[in-house]
Amino acid sequence: MYIPTFDDVIAAHERITPYIHKTPVLTSTTIDAIAGAQLFFKCENLQKAGAFKARGASNAVFGLSDAEAARGVATHSSGNHGLCLSYAAGRRGIPCTVVMPRTAPQAKKDAVRGYGGRVVECEPSTSSREAVFAQVVAESGAEFVHPYNDPRVIAGQGTCSRELASQVPDLDAVIAPIGGGGMVSGTCLTLSSIAPKVKIYAAEPQQADDAARSFRAGHIIADDAPETVADGLKVPLKDLTWHFVQRHVTDILTVSEEEIVEAMKLIWKRMKIIAEPSSAVPLAAILKNPDVFRGKRVGVVITGGNVDLDKLPWMKG
Amino acid sequence: MYIPTFDDVIAAHERITPYIHKTPVLTSTTIDAIAGAQLFFKCENLQKAGAFKARGASNAVFGLSDAEAARGVATHSSGNHGLCLSYAAGRRGIPCTVVMPRTAPQAKKDAVRGYGGRVVECEPSTSSREAVFAQVVAESGAEFVHPYNDPRVIAGQGTCSRELASQVPDLDAVIAPIGGGGMVSGTCLTLSSIAPKVKIYAAEPQQADDAARSFRAGHIIADDAPETVADGLKVPLKDLTWHFVQRHVTDILTVSEEEIVEAMKLIWKRMKIIAEPSSAVPLAAILKNPDVFRGKRVGVVITGGNVDLDKLPWMKG
Repeated sequence: MYIPTFDDVIAAHERITPYIHKTPVLTSTTIDAIAGAQLFFKCENLQKAGAFKARGASNAVFGLSDAEAARGVATHSSGNHGLCLSYAAGRRGIPCTVVMPRTAPQAKKDAVRGYGGRVVECEPSTSSREAVFAQVVAESGAEFVHPYNDPRVIAGQGTCSRELASQVPDLDAVIAPIGGGGMVSGTCLTLSSIAPKVKIYAAEPQQADDAARSFRAGHIIADDAPETVADGLKVPLKDLTWHFVQRHVTDILTVSEEEIVEAMKLIWKRMKIIAEPSSAVPLAAILKNPDVFRGKRVGVVITGGNVDLDKLPWMKG
Repeated sequence: MYIPTFDDVIAAHERITPYIHKTPVLTSTTIDAIAGAQLFFKCENLQKAGAFKARGASNAVFGLSDAEAARGVATHSSGNHGLCLSYAAGRRGIPCTVVMPRTAPQAKKDAVRGYGGRVVECEPSTSSREAVFAQVVAESGAEFVHPYNDPRVIAGQGTCSRELASQVPDLDAVIAPIGGGGMVSGTCLTLSSIAPKVKIYAAEPQQADDAARSFRAGHIIADDAPETVADGLKVPLKDLTWHFVQRHVTDILTVSEEEIVEAMKLIWKRMKIIAEPSSAVPLAAILKNPDVFRGKRVGVVITGGNVDLDKLPWMKG
């Protein structure tokens, strides 16, 4: 297992700069007053393809040799990573295959295709996904880019907190949502190198709290198909992300479904940005734990903005 | 009638800088591809109080002498101006009264109060509004700040395109929605001074096309209570805004209700920002008139983001 270093983050940053947005940091006096803290929202929902995962995917894609790139890239993901890998591959002009369950929303499949990627459907089971994916790789020789358990991806995600640290001096803490742990690992990698006094918090849905339980147990615990409105946070930690989480995270805070939706609506209403449910988990955790953050300067990673505008959590069924 | 000058814009900018956001300019490769042009979205939906009107209102409020300020400010508005005047007055710590029809949405009244303003209700008729407003001013001695037909307000709005011009070099055109014409007048005032080659377009709902008809007729035409989803654009031009519009606007383009909602959804979906219907009118006009904008670098003012998240235009009744 290769553990990426901060040099990899610097190299990633140089490599991906032409293909990503330097996203703005937004603030809200009203939300600060509610939270009793100074919050700096790093808006990766405004990132290319609508999610921070454009960073890691671009780093993986543009780090390939020409010979590797010609065979294309592949992944299995029904979420933002599939979309972002398709985006990055499109920018390099190479093939991208995303294996998705046939039950995934049509909008997600269309979005992958919209960036030029190919969708290969599998049955909605792990065994089918693995079999179909193995076949795709065997046939194409495509390079597998894992959604998070990949040093290239983690180094790419680490560019986000590098930008944030340059945009906002003297942060006391940074908080990001945790699913597989890619963003949190990149944050750990970067901040432990350039701003080791900044505390790193992760925020997780109670209904998918495998990372929090792993953190307390001292070893990885994976849940089987948890259900939460924060659909980007259902996946478990893996060895590489666990490496960073157990070493550098101060705490993992969990929140209820209601708290997530309430925080999401607060972000939409006061900040006028479209954040997906997963992105609202950190703010929900801040509001639930005022004593932890009171008076602090806190970076809050808004991880993505890919939602179905026709099916918002507060719309009636 | 005092016609504001670019010196007033410079003075306004210095005066209001502590109270407003320098809003980001966002871009979308996808929308550019659809439009066949390079679009630079000036995101005043991310402005304080959710609308560009925080600029003009702050300029009016902070330009008052201490004696004037002590008597407070007042306006009649059921839209963003009332909200923004309340915001600015709150920042200065002076009273603000907003006369609103008793039929105005509760959320709008609550929003004015949320910033510390006082709401005085009138009947939903012009005569009642004028009578109630006159009484408010007589009793309090408050300074009337008109939503747009006021040189202080127009000079304040002119700071927006001053920022935009510094953020994006070599624009070919700027397009903004037109209702009363405050934003368009500020844009005319600034750009005619610092970038006279930039063409200025206004965009308007077909169902409230009084500015377009005025423009063609050569004199102000006011409609009586037009109906459009772009609720910020129902008011007519007045003498001061007409002064700027007739001198500096290249054309006023009109769009249908469906085109507005479609453009609004495109902005939400691809740019991940919450733009109110009025803010989508310029993009709708660009998409409807590709020949006018093809290959051009166009600044697009997203004027505000104050929507009722429970009543979006694409939600079923």
